[in-house]
Amino acid sequence: MTPTITAFEKSPDGGRGLARDFPVRWAFEEVGQPYDVRLVPWAEMKQPAHLALQPFGQIPTYEDGDLAMFESGAIILHIAERHAGLLPQDPDARARAICWMFAAKCTVEPVIVENEVAKFLEGDKSWSAERKPLIDGRIRDRLRQLSARLGDAEWLDGAFSAGDLLMINVLRRPGGRAIAGELPNLAAYISRGEARPAFKRAFEAQLAVFEAATTSA
Amino acid sequence: MTPTITAFEKSPDGGRGLARDFPVRWAFEEVGQPYDVRLVPWAEMKQPAHLALQPFGQIPTYEDGDLAMFESGAIILHIAERHAGLLPQDPDARARAICWMFAAKCTVEPVIVENEVAKFLEGDKSWSAERKPLIDGRIRDRLRQLSARLGDAEWLDGAFSAGDLLMINVLRRPGGRAIAGELPNLAAYISRGEARPAFKRAFEAQLAVFEAATTSA
Repeated sequence: MTPTITAFEKSPDGGRGLARDFPVRWAFEEVGQPYDVRLVPWAEMKQPAHLALQPFGQIPTYEDGDLAMFESGAIILHIAERHAGLLPQDPDARARAICWMFAAKCTVEPVIVENEVAKFLEGDKSWSAERKPLIDGRIRDRLRQLSARLGDAEWLDGAFSAGDLLMINVLRRPGGRAIAGELPNLAAYISRGEARPAFKRAFEAQLAVFEAATTSA
Repeated sequence: MTPTITAFEKSPDGGRGLARDFPVRWAFEEVGQPYDVRLVPWAEMKQPAHLALQPFGQIPTYEDGDLAMFESGAIILHIAERHAGLLPQDPDARARAICWMFAAKCTVEPVIVENEVAKFLEGDKSWSAERKPLIDGRIRDRLRQLSARLGDAEWLDGAFSAGDLLMINVLRRPGGRAIAGELPNLAAYISRGEARPAFKRAFEAQLAVFEAATTSA
């Protein structure tokens, strides 16, 4: 049975692959598994039918037979546990890859997303301009630590893993990419991720949805 | 072999169990596994020896033989996968419990932690008082959604799981507890977690470290 994920009917990301369905699409492509997509209109995100699948009214969700999941990190871990390509076979290496999944989502993503919160929810406030360097400074501190750990390596810990997928995915957000650009090894790390055939297939798939929505609007 | 985790030598949390070693201690207690603790002095957090274990200079870490891990969420998942008591046996229920682990860490924790970021890193700024209601509003929106999903249930999805452990752990942070207090079912949910014998043993263990540090200071 082919699992079904949800994505925005009209993503606010301008087709840049910044919505949370994107890393799930990328994960499916890395492991070579087909998936279906159900598009959720904006007006239905906070309605009971969608909240039953996603308690916080967000995307993506994942449905496979009787199983319904939410949270992109959990969905990607679920895919990675069931199909080869995103987690090492060796138990210790597998545990370390999962550390990087949580590091991407819990330690790096929040400081980067705060840049967007400040822009979209507080951009009209008197403090917006003065606060921006503080937010950037926190991103810079975190990314310098990440850059120091990555060093000259191709990926964070051995072969490409779901940890790299989630880390590169969050570094691609505008607040991350701008500051990663100051750190050549991180900028190259993002580029390596974006050059993967699976990334490109996932990117094209989400872009097609955005373009269809734009055309029909 | 008994795993070793790290914790702050002198936690800034006043012995309230708010540092990230606490949920890992709680997880060990829930599954009945002994653990050792190595205390890291503040001055050593950003030094090479600790950064080799924890790339962002934080606690906790987890060492067991040749395996070194970081990120409390990943460590707790590792414990839960190896010992009964924190994840259901049924594969679908297990996957859903892991969704709640990620929801706690990725969707609920960031909005609650922003309350602390604002207080400790921006408390002296001109915008601090005016911005506080915006932060509280975001926490309130998220916790109302969580409250609606929890309803009259005892735990988030069937039996107590690592998802509840991480969710209750983050709701206990000051910014979460204050607003959870407006939602009786969430307040009761926190209390149910804190009443668990494993919670109490973990709490006493971290408090003993804090009290020893205070006495010796």
